[in-house]
Amino acid sequence: MKINKFVMPELIFGSGSIGQVGECCARLGARKVFIVTDPGVQASDWFEQVVDSCKDARLPYAIFSGITTNPKDYEVDKGVQIYLEEECDAIVGVGGGSAIDVAKAVAILATNGGTIQEYEGVDKIKFPLPPQVMVATTAGSGSEVSQFSIITDSKKKKKLTIISKSLVPDIAIVDPQTLITKSPLLTATTGLDVLTHAIESFVSIAATPLTDVQAKSAIMLVAQNLRPSVASKMNKEAKEKMAMASVQAGLAFSNAILGAVHAMSHAIGGRFLLPHGDVNAILLPYVMEFNYLACPEKFFQIAELFGEETSSRSMMDAGQRAIEYVKKLSVDIGAPQRLSEMGLSESHAPIIGQVAIEDACMITNPRDITATDVERLFKLAL
Amino acid sequence: MKINKFVMPELIFGSGSIGQVGECCARLGARKVFIVTDPGVQASDWFEQVVDSCKDARLPYAIFSGITTNPKDYEVDKGVQIYLEEECDAIVGVGGGSAIDVAKAVAILATNGGTIQEYEGVDKIKFPLPPQVMVATTAGSGSEVSQFSIITDSKKKKKLTIISKSLVPDIAIVDPQTLITKSPLLTATTGLDVLTHAIESFVSIAATPLTDVQAKSAIMLVAQNLRPSVASKMNKEAKEKMAMASVQAGLAFSNAILGAVHAMSHAIGGRFLLPHGDVNAILLPYVMEFNYLACPEKFFQIAELFGEETSSRSMMDAGQRAIEYVKKLSVDIGAPQRLSEMGLSESHAPIIGQVAIEDACMITNPRDITATDVERLFKLAL
Repeated sequence: MKINKFVMPELIFGSGSIGQVGECCARLGARKVFIVTDPGVQASDWFEQVVDSCKDARLPYAIFSGITTNPKDYEVDKGVQIYLEEECDAIVGVGGGSAIDVAKAVAILATNGGTIQEYEGVDKIKFPLPPQVMVATTAGSGSEVSQFSIITDSKKKKKLTIISKSLVPDIAIVDPQTLITKSPLLTATTGLDVLTHAIESFVSIAATPLTDVQAKSAIMLVAQNLRPSVASKMNKEAKEKMAMASVQAGLAFSNAILGAVHAMSHAIGGRFLLPHGDVNAILLPYVMEFNYLACPEKFFQIAELFGEETSSRSMMDAGQRAIEYVKKLSVDIGAPQRLSEMGLSESHAPIIGQVAIEDACMITNPRDITATDVERLFKLAL
Repeated sequence: MKINKFVMPELIFGSGSIGQVGECCARLGARKVFIVTDPGVQASDWFEQVVDSCKDARLPYAIFSGITTNPKDYEVDKGVQIYLEEECDAIVGVGGGSAIDVAKAVAILATNGGTIQEYEGVDKIKFPLPPQVMVATTAGSGSEVSQFSIITDSKKKKKLTIISKSLVPDIAIVDPQTLITKSPLLTATTGLDVLTHAIESFVSIAATPLTDVQAKSAIMLVAQNLRPSVASKMNKEAKEKMAMASVQAGLAFSNAILGAVHAMSHAIGGRFLLPHGDVNAILLPYVMEFNYLACPEKFFQIAELFGEETSSRSMMDAGQRAIEYVKKLSVDIGAPQRLSEMGLSESHAPIIGQVAIEDACMITNPRDITATDVERLFKLAL
């Protein structure tokens, strides 16, 4: 058997847990906290709970919210500059994947120096990072529990995938109360991002029994809770379950890595600065069709987790139901269906094929794949 | 909803992983390693791999193997003395629960001072511990991933249950190749210890969705692999799966705590120095009968995980099958059946009732329980 590795942060999950940020930082020995967030989160009511908890713990802090969707290298540089000027010694990220990924990238440069480009790939970080507490507010990215940070190289217009155990935060805080402010569309696309994480890590060639239990639980939770969560802002139970699904999918992909959906979505998102969840949502069923050949038994299990009727069907037929299920779910919750709606066209296929095939996430895709395959899948999704 | 917390070490699982001890210690900044083990493990072939890995990492080391089953406070004191004399700065435990629990206890006293009695209960450790790498060799205790250490107070003849996040090792190494040297009886009783961990944490009042996925996976793995593992020394696959079950049950109970089986077994084991796995194996079905009233739906799920036929039965009837299943499994694999075989008698019931009811594990038992209930259960198991 191969040697399996699994790593995760200390996890604090539940409504009200956001108020524990300050004491968590104090427990990790922080003396001044650098808080990375985005302007939308900063304006929310519950962001005050983060700030108040730092005050309660008698911890001074500096806030940095100069980030955008698909966060850029120069935003990271700006963050590092303020972190150093303010003489902070611990890092808090509050938000979706963008804020948390920038917080991690600031942590890297704060103690390791250089440019963020130097850390692209696996295990390039040399020196220990400052204590990191990450607060997830979107139930999507899973970045609060993962060893990933994704930063856009603004000059090369591509996403840098940085993978290192040092990027697993010390403490992850997931507070579902933050989810009730999300729009139905954002709930839908981040929810499909969760499903993409869970499915890609489940069929990954690096999957292990430890990642499988997390991935399977996440797939089942999405099947049972994503529709109700999109349907009603007030359905707290569905939102709590989606938050748990996001954590579990994050634990799965952090340790089993991902596949062709993410490799393509990094290529597309980096070049055209499109929302990550939307692109994943569109690509997922096409990549599933492509990958089905590699692992029909896993697709059969996915169909079962979706609650599809499998007992009267052949394994291949039942596995196919998993793909149909994802297509119908995506339509039901009003997710975007075509890349052409986002301004993409056939002329973009060659560059996407070329960039995606080099992405670190492509290595664990279960089916062998070429740039030509990527181009074909891209065109199908237009 | 309540706030759920979950914490685990970095985990390295697989045949050959034991050879990574040295590099793990080096990565954690160790300069001299204190290795705690027992004489049986020290004499094994694969213990050399631990020592060689330290040599390869150019790490000096000291070995301490002066421990016994149900390890005692004075053994911990002896270990601390050598740790300090040898000027070590990192701790490795290699063995079953005894060696790992002593390694953790040495870690506590090395940097916090005092006697081990002062740390009984929850969260009594004040100062950070030295880096800890724990290597599990029995597929039973789960101590390599847990926040528990159980040490016997030799004067009071009782077990001290010490629970703290500081006791979660930095790195846990689980190498199933170490399991092929276990006797069928030890395989049976440690395997039933795993099942006890999984069932007690699953029905615990502190169970969460994150502990449930681990507990359920462990229950299913035990049902499928414990019999084959006892049956053949050479069935590597069954032993690997039992090692995984042990890890997952360890993650479940570390975060959801345990119940009346462990509270009673700590009381019995501390007073009469009997093997922990044997006592748990005998008590489990009696405590399940008692607890069934509190959570029939969870027992129904356990029956399903055992592969029992549940669809044609009422929930109460199906749940009862879970208890029958455990009784039959225990007989099938030749586990001890009666406490009287171990020299216990009715006269011991009052003291066991009195001590067990005070154990930290009793707090999370799903059914309210009194000392009189404990006495009755003890007598039933005689």
